[in-house]
Amino acid sequence: MELHQVRLLARIFFFFIFLTTLQHSCSARILTTISKPDRHDYAASARWLVSQNIWGVLSTLSIDHEGAPFGNVVSFSDGLPEKGSGIPYFYLTTLDPTARNALKDQRASLAISESPIGTCKSDPMNPTCSKLTLTGKLLLLDEGSKEAEVAKKALFTKHPEMMDWPKDHDFRIFKLEITNIFLINWFGGAKPITVDEYLHAKSIKVISSL
Amino acid sequence: MELHQVRLLARIFFFFIFLTTLQHSCSARILTTISKPDRHDYAASARWLVSQNIWGVLSTLSIDHEGAPFGNVVSFSDGLPEKGSGIPYFYLTTLDPTARNALKDQRASLAISESPIGTCKSDPMNPTCSKLTLTGKLLLLDEGSKEAEVAKKALFTKHPEMMDWPKDHDFRIFKLEITNIFLINWFGGAKPITVDEYLHAKSIKVISSL
Repeated sequence: MELHQVRLLARIFFFFIFLTTLQHSCSARILTTISKPDRHDYAASARWLVSQNIWGVLSTLSIDHEGAPFGNVVSFSDGLPEKGSGIPYFYLTTLDPTARNALKDQRASLAISESPIGTCKSDPMNPTCSKLTLTGKLLLLDEGSKEAEVAKKALFTKHPEMMDWPKDHDFRIFKLEITNIFLINWFGGAKPITVDEYLHAKSIKVISSL
Repeated sequence: MELHQVRLLARIFFFFIFLTTLQHSCSARILTTISKPDRHDYAASARWLVSQNIWGVLSTLSIDHEGAPFGNVVSFSDGLPEKGSGIPYFYLTTLDPTARNALKDQRASLAISESPIGTCKSDPMNPTCSKLTLTGKLLLLDEGSKEAEVAKKALFTKHPEMMDWPKDHDFRIFKLEITNIFLINWFGGAKPITVDEYLHAKSIKVISSL
């Protein structure tokens, strides 16, 4: 093989390495989320949705709009993936209506979708694209309490930039104390699942219905 | 160049074409959504969020849970991109709590995030990642009315599989009649924007703040 042929091959080789790296970084999100639980395991399915999502819509009763339901896009965390507790924690500022609403009336719900995880193959409202609504009470945690420390660690690990959010914005830690679970993860309407089953779900099993 | 070298080069060439195609299809989503409006144009920003998103969380007052705010993941459409009206239409079944709740009490809100569009560079709760909550009344449209026809076309074009959803599931067309707009698309809290400004926004301008 002549020198210019070797050079050509070397160039093609490095270009191929470059493209492979690009393609890998592009699909990395999908690679980390393949472990969707068996759809018959409702508790694991619900816990998987909570552990894999980093944001959802938190609804409260609006002070500003005479008790209308006010949904707000918020980040949350229940802990690190596969180490979460199932309890969603939030870092909310009282400059935002949601925290103020909750301090007046604790009733709230958190709605999340499978769509952002990247495993849905159909429309976000198709029952095979899972969705979950956790209804309950949005409670302010005592600063300095053990649970607040756990929550802060869960939040700051999944949302590192929260550590740098302005100190003078009165960010406080809240949790959703769940009283009811609405899960759709297949045809046939909402699945029967109790809060107890959800909170005590075994660790998430690996793939079967993808 | 010998025959085996030519074959090797040909193989490398086709593998490179394959990888390029993969990488392109992977980034296609981002390519279709680059036209984020100038952040100072609040009406255009809000309309862009509505036109580019295909799902959000629709919150109503729960009949089943004593008036608690119930958020539910739903698909919606305000029309085709750049041809939308800004009014979100929904295709809801009364087998689902949201439609039933709205028929009892019309108060509702739709919350959406910039995150699914793919243009956010930071945490979904960072103010530079836009979010929008439209509050108002969730109204059932008269079947056969002109607006129901417009809505159906808007929904079925963005969500083609809706056309095949079961006929016996009592799917009905609803719209959100907007009374208030909560938009965060930069630092400094909610932006001042009226419903009138939102509904009469000029067509979305091309990129400036990305």
